[in-house]
Amino acid sequence: MKVQIFSQGNLIFEGNNERGQQLTFSGNKEAVSPMESVLMAASACSAIDVEILLQKMRQPYTRIEVETEGVRADTIPAVFQKIHLHYKIYGDVKTDKAEKVVSMSLEKYCSVSLMLSASVQISHSVEVVKP
Amino acid sequence: MKVQIFSQGNLIFEGNNERGQQLTFSGNKEAVSPMESVLMAASACSAIDVEILLQKMRQPYTRIEVETEGVRADTIPAVFQKIHLHYKIYGDVKTDKAEKVVSMSLEKYCSVSLMLSASVQISHSVEVVKP
Repeated sequence: MKVQIFSQGNLIFEGNNERGQQLTFSGNKEAVSPMESVLMAASACSAIDVEILLQKMRQPYTRIEVETEGVRADTIPAVFQKIHLHYKIYGDVKTDKAEKVVSMSLEKYCSVSLMLSASVQISHSVEVVKP
Repeated sequence: MKVQIFSQGNLIFEGNNERGQQLTFSGNKEAVSPMESVLMAASACSAIDVEILLQKMRQPYTRIEVETEGVRADTIPAVFQKIHLHYKIYGDVKTDKAEKVVSMSLEKYCSVSLMLSASVQISHSVEVVKP
């Protein structure tokens, strides 16, 4: 897997993947920061698993949200020490199925969170929002 | 640091940071994948350091690029096993300064690559492209 990034000036960088799709990052709050994007990537990686697994289990979800908080070290490098992911699954979904698919994602499938878990304490909670 | 992601249907997720800035991810090649975004985030995080440090050292760079390749495990979870970052620094920049700032970033400052290095073998190379 290959990507490239290019400077745009003023600490802004544009990233491109092999399909020409782009994301913009910055070190000056003018765009998403690299660390914010890592939290989003961990959340999206897992949420994609959750969506696929809920479909396989024929659970009628209507929306999936993840609210994620990262606590960073006070010193440099300001790595994440803890990450908490709160999953909100909307629809007439069984709570035990929702909890099971989230656990399956975080324990087995989600490459991003599993890489981070080598150095970061990752926790989660699951909320089913019935219609 | 907090972020949220929301399902858009068809394995597409929109991420938002606390400033309302957005990135879109997908599990179906319609947008950047979470794992591609992690490679971009590691590259951008380090490139931001490189830009700041080259400015401090009064090196007249005109452009910074990073070409990054990640090798993933063949099995699930398909985590990165190796990541190589190739830095291309354009301008009349001293090669030893370019190499020094990249090393400083990867060894001391870049939170994203330093978190990943707990489980991923990270290597780099530096090329100065003179005008």
